[in-house]
Amino acid sequence: MTTTTTINAVDIQAVAGLANKIVEEPGVASTTWSSKVAWDEGFRSVASVRDFDPIASDEPAALGGTDTAPNPVEQLLSALGNCLVVGYAANATAAGIEVEQLEVELEGDLDLHTFLGLNPEGNAGFESIRANVTLKSDATEAQLAELHDKVVGTSPVGHTLGRSVPVAIELV
Amino acid sequence: MTTTTTINAVDIQAVAGLANKIVEEPGVASTTWSSKVAWDEGFRSVASVRDFDPIASDEPAALGGTDTAPNPVEQLLSALGNCLVVGYAANATAAGIEVEQLEVELEGDLDLHTFLGLNPEGNAGFESIRANVTLKSDATEAQLAELHDKVVGTSPVGHTLGRSVPVAIELV
Repeated sequence: MTTTTTINAVDIQAVAGLANKIVEEPGVASTTWSSKVAWDEGFRSVASVRDFDPIASDEPAALGGTDTAPNPVEQLLSALGNCLVVGYAANATAAGIEVEQLEVELEGDLDLHTFLGLNPEGNAGFESIRANVTLKSDATEAQLAELHDKVVGTSPVGHTLGRSVPVAIELV
Repeated sequence: MTTTTTINAVDIQAVAGLANKIVEEPGVASTTWSSKVAWDEGFRSVASVRDFDPIASDEPAALGGTDTAPNPVEQLLSALGNCLVVGYAANATAAGIEVEQLEVELEGDLDLHTFLGLNPEGNAGFESIRANVTLKSDATEAQLAELHDKVVGTSPVGHTLGRSVPVAIELV
């Protein structure tokens, strides 16, 4: 008889199983992720991932949109927050830490000059991003510090933003 | 009497108005965007932006999730696609190009070793990202080439991914 104790409702066995499989077959670690975006009209579009319902995107009225959904830079901050949550939940579970509550508040600073064509050689993107994480648990300060370091060191979206990634945009 | 011709349902006057305002008051260009992410359980969370309904996030079963929503790296690709759509729609409208159809297919390559703790000093993020844009219009090749260059040069999410952004993650 096998009993499995689950905390945080995280299927840590699945994560460990994948890690073990990758140790045996490193090629399994090479993954490709995708999304397909279709323009509606104005600044509205929808993004389709696998078989999930399409998710809407728009811009605020001040930027020429109709303000019906979060805009792309807000979506990017959301992606970072969701990624950090996975990291904290996974690594807390692996360390036996039961999480009571976990929230991430994200902010990013962006100068609109380049987006609006007023500074053609400038940076249209975020100049800096901040993520403030609130985590309630019975973990010690030392455990939390170790947890935090692991999350920061292993976050796919965090690393993508913190590094220069080759982005090939082609009009086909 | 004033008549305004709108193409692509883009409120290009709003964009031009904001640009003109920023020429007069450059400080208006300094913007801060935000999102708040709350953990549910497992690898599920929701991201809340302004007053919009929260948007769900999860991981596939192979990564320990319950596969109820796109995951964070898929959301990041979606954000890039949505951002490029805004760029093409805005710059096409400014150039008088009527867009019939506009789609972006996005892919990103990611090695799972670091995310899974198997290569602690490695890159957990996307190694490369591709965005293939399909645009149907009556524009000439030269117009499309100019349009494409403008979009690539002014994309907030594209620039964020293509550059190294300081990301401060704090456990507060």
